[in-house]
Amino acid sequence: MDYGVVIKVLGILLVFEGLLMIPALFVSFFYGQGDSFAFLLSIALTAIIGLFMFRVKGYHKKIKAKEALAIVAIGWILTSFFGSLPFVISGSIPSFVDAFFETISGLTTTGATLIEDVEALPKGILFWRSFTHWIGGMGILVLTVAILPTMGIGGFQIFKAEIPGPMADKIVPRIKDTAKILYVTYISMTILQIGLLLIGGMNLYESTIHTFGTLGTGGFSVRRENIGAYDSSYIHIVINIFMVLSGINFSLFYALYKGKWRDVIRNEELRLYLTIIFISSILVGLNIFIASGGYKNIGLAFKDSFFQVSSIMTTTAYTTTDFDLWPVFSKTILFMLMFIGGCAGSTSGSIKGLRILVLFKLVKRQIGKTFHPNAYIPVKVDGKILNDSTITSIASFFILYIIIFFIGTLVISLEGLDFQSSISTAAASIGNVGLGFGSVGPSQNYSGFSSWAKMFLSLLMLMGRLELFTIIALISPKSWKNDI
Amino acid sequence: MDYGVVIKVLGILLVFEGLLMIPALFVSFFYGQGDSFAFLLSIALTAIIGLFMFRVKGYHKKIKAKEALAIVAIGWILTSFFGSLPFVISGSIPSFVDAFFETISGLTTTGATLIEDVEALPKGILFWRSFTHWIGGMGILVLTVAILPTMGIGGFQIFKAEIPGPMADKIVPRIKDTAKILYVTYISMTILQIGLLLIGGMNLYESTIHTFGTLGTGGFSVRRENIGAYDSSYIHIVINIFMVLSGINFSLFYALYKGKWRDVIRNEELRLYLTIIFISSILVGLNIFIASGGYKNIGLAFKDSFFQVSSIMTTTAYTTTDFDLWPVFSKTILFMLMFIGGCAGSTSGSIKGLRILVLFKLVKRQIGKTFHPNAYIPVKVDGKILNDSTITSIASFFILYIIIFFIGTLVISLEGLDFQSSISTAAASIGNVGLGFGSVGPSQNYSGFSSWAKMFLSLLMLMGRLELFTIIALISPKSWKNDI
Repeated sequence: MDYGVVIKVLGILLVFEGLLMIPALFVSFFYGQGDSFAFLLSIALTAIIGLFMFRVKGYHKKIKAKEALAIVAIGWILTSFFGSLPFVISGSIPSFVDAFFETISGLTTTGATLIEDVEALPKGILFWRSFTHWIGGMGILVLTVAILPTMGIGGFQIFKAEIPGPMADKIVPRIKDTAKILYVTYISMTILQIGLLLIGGMNLYESTIHTFGTLGTGGFSVRRENIGAYDSSYIHIVINIFMVLSGINFSLFYALYKGKWRDVIRNEELRLYLTIIFISSILVGLNIFIASGGYKNIGLAFKDSFFQVSSIMTTTAYTTTDFDLWPVFSKTILFMLMFIGGCAGSTSGSIKGLRILVLFKLVKRQIGKTFHPNAYIPVKVDGKILNDSTITSIASFFILYIIIFFIGTLVISLEGLDFQSSISTAAASIGNVGLGFGSVGPSQNYSGFSSWAKMFLSLLMLMGRLELFTIIALISPKSWKNDI
Repeated sequence: MDYGVVIKVLGILLVFEGLLMIPALFVSFFYGQGDSFAFLLSIALTAIIGLFMFRVKGYHKKIKAKEALAIVAIGWILTSFFGSLPFVISGSIPSFVDAFFETISGLTTTGATLIEDVEALPKGILFWRSFTHWIGGMGILVLTVAILPTMGIGGFQIFKAEIPGPMADKIVPRIKDTAKILYVTYISMTILQIGLLLIGGMNLYESTIHTFGTLGTGGFSVRRENIGAYDSSYIHIVINIFMVLSGINFSLFYALYKGKWRDVIRNEELRLYLTIIFISSILVGLNIFIASGGYKNIGLAFKDSFFQVSSIMTTTAYTTTDFDLWPVFSKTILFMLMFIGGCAGSTSGSIKGLRILVLFKLVKRQIGKTFHPNAYIPVKVDGKILNDSTITSIASFFILYIIIFFIGTLVISLEGLDFQSSISTAAASIGNVGLGFGSVGPSQNYSGFSSWAKMFLSLLMLMGRLELFTIIALISPKSWKNDI
């Protein structure tokens, strides 16, 4: 392990994080609720430590797989650590474990909160909290990647280890261009959504907060009643549409921009993603309309079902209504969606559409093999044959996901929650959804968990965000052998 | 499709089934509770229809994959149909759907029952009900397989489609010998367990019934309180040990008989199986001892935990206590065990140890690949390298299992049960466990389900028993094309 290069890159990362706290500092100045000092101190601490680390000597310029993994995993933990400083210093979240949980939940775009009365906190702090969604959605390191090559350090391995979804390296051949495309798209969408929310009568502050939460597929709000606090179908629909957009592979927006609309329409993952949202919305809408009787007309039921289906499927978890009160059939659909997630190359978490697509095709092939045991049946996505290594890697991901989900449920069950709460807490954490049923339902928060459970859930969120293998590989004893 | 040969083999199967009802007829004569006529009529109907089907003409002697699949799938449905005749005709279970559910639950060795007061039924009927476990455990068709070759019809495809577990064809090279070894072992164990239960003071009738339930990993009892009705640690331990034995690959008993004890000790699947039972028993034992306070000493807690862990893991689902009252941690462990099951080549259901072993190794390999993306790392079991086709077939099985489990949960949730009951009903049905939590917990039964839910659960049980692909392949439209 080349510790020099790891420390140097982590240093750059911290300097970046310090700079990223500046907008929150301005917001805190503007509203003058006494949280400015916390930001000043946090920025100073983060940036100065970052600068010291940056000046480390004695490293080689080439980053290998092992260093990349270490940078990504430690990078996320370090940024969550320093990102929680404003919460602790301002006294908004006095417990360090709690502040760390909230920050990692923000950065991993999970959106699980343990704040009991969100409306009581200063606006600067809440801005930073939601800004972590926006930063995390893009991946702090993607930004770093754009800088690293200019310093002669190859960032490809980091990019590969961090960007969500399989085959991320295939978006465009050059990483620097990819990063640029990603954040140009991201910033354009941010401006567009803020504008549309402003038109709907939401103030600038809240429009910005909810845009961060939507595009990062995070879900932090500044209202006790979440999106349900806004009695405006227009606002619900704007957020709904941007949630759906945020779950789409960002490279498709680029393809659309380049006029390749055929590629977009024919994209199998996109089709699967939209089909699942469509069918689930219909099923849930019919179920809540028929079973609850609380809806005046079916349109309102579909509006709610479309919102919650999109929200859970994209792992955002904004709410307009308490879906924990819905019938078990609807809740089971939402539970299943927690395991699907949006498309690869989007800001959403969980298993992701592309993998689900390949898993389905793998099963289909196996059914075909029941009749033709020796036939060669290729697995194709978008007309291209996947090689065996990609297929087994996706299958392994799914197996590991289910294993970690089971272990997560088991560990959380020690908290003494009911079965439904335990199982949905695990699914919501590893899938970066942040919201489940029972004790982690829309009307609840994570403040009731013990400190060790909060640390464990933080680990699950991080594993989910970094797509399991990065973290698992780092904690496996083999990885620290010198010969690798 | 060569319908002639399919009908002929199914005819043999029915004649067999008729013969297999004769022991129950004798039991009904002996106790004279008015159910003899039902057996006489059922035997006559089953055997006569079987004989008519047997006399069909115009078939080719070679059975291909497609015919084998049809024989196995239709065979199970037909035998469940005719097997339910005694229940309906005797009036013990008047509804045909209910009788079909009970029979398929028996034959698939699930042990899910909808009888509300089992002690009120005639002894002949209850004998037949438990005998279906014993027959189903071995696989009615394994018996047929031993007969078919003497008629010049190859039975290998049927054997492959029916025997539980991957790589079943590798037990011994010759099928006829394999079948012989399997049932010699099975019958010896039956005699041994009945003897040991008799020594414990259980009467011959109940000893036989519970031996059928144990060795078939089924779980039907003739007592309201199940095994908990016997206030004898000796009886609990005998049944416990035979449950564990029934979850072991039967070919290992043969290896032991042949003096190959090294192969047995080194068998990786057996080690995994025993390790999981051991660790789970310890965890559950400690949890129920600490959390409930109802145990005088930890030994009693371990006795209960070992019994329930073995019972769920082997998919038997006998109970000595109502584990639905246990803490969520223990229930979560039991829930996870539902997805593991015993070893391949045993009478147990679910995913099975060998597959679990391969899945773990696959994940381990993928973790290794995080560092060495291009390295060739073989997956080995018992020192032998598995080929890619076997690995993807096992991964596909797991994926399909999880998909069907999710769909099962969703469909069952329409019954209006709580989440825990829905999810454990699906897991218990597809895993052939038969017992779950809440509405399908130890103190409950399946009588509350609607008729269509009972039919759906019957399908899940059958899918689980036939290892998914047999049924899925048959209902996929492709399978009926003429060119195959």
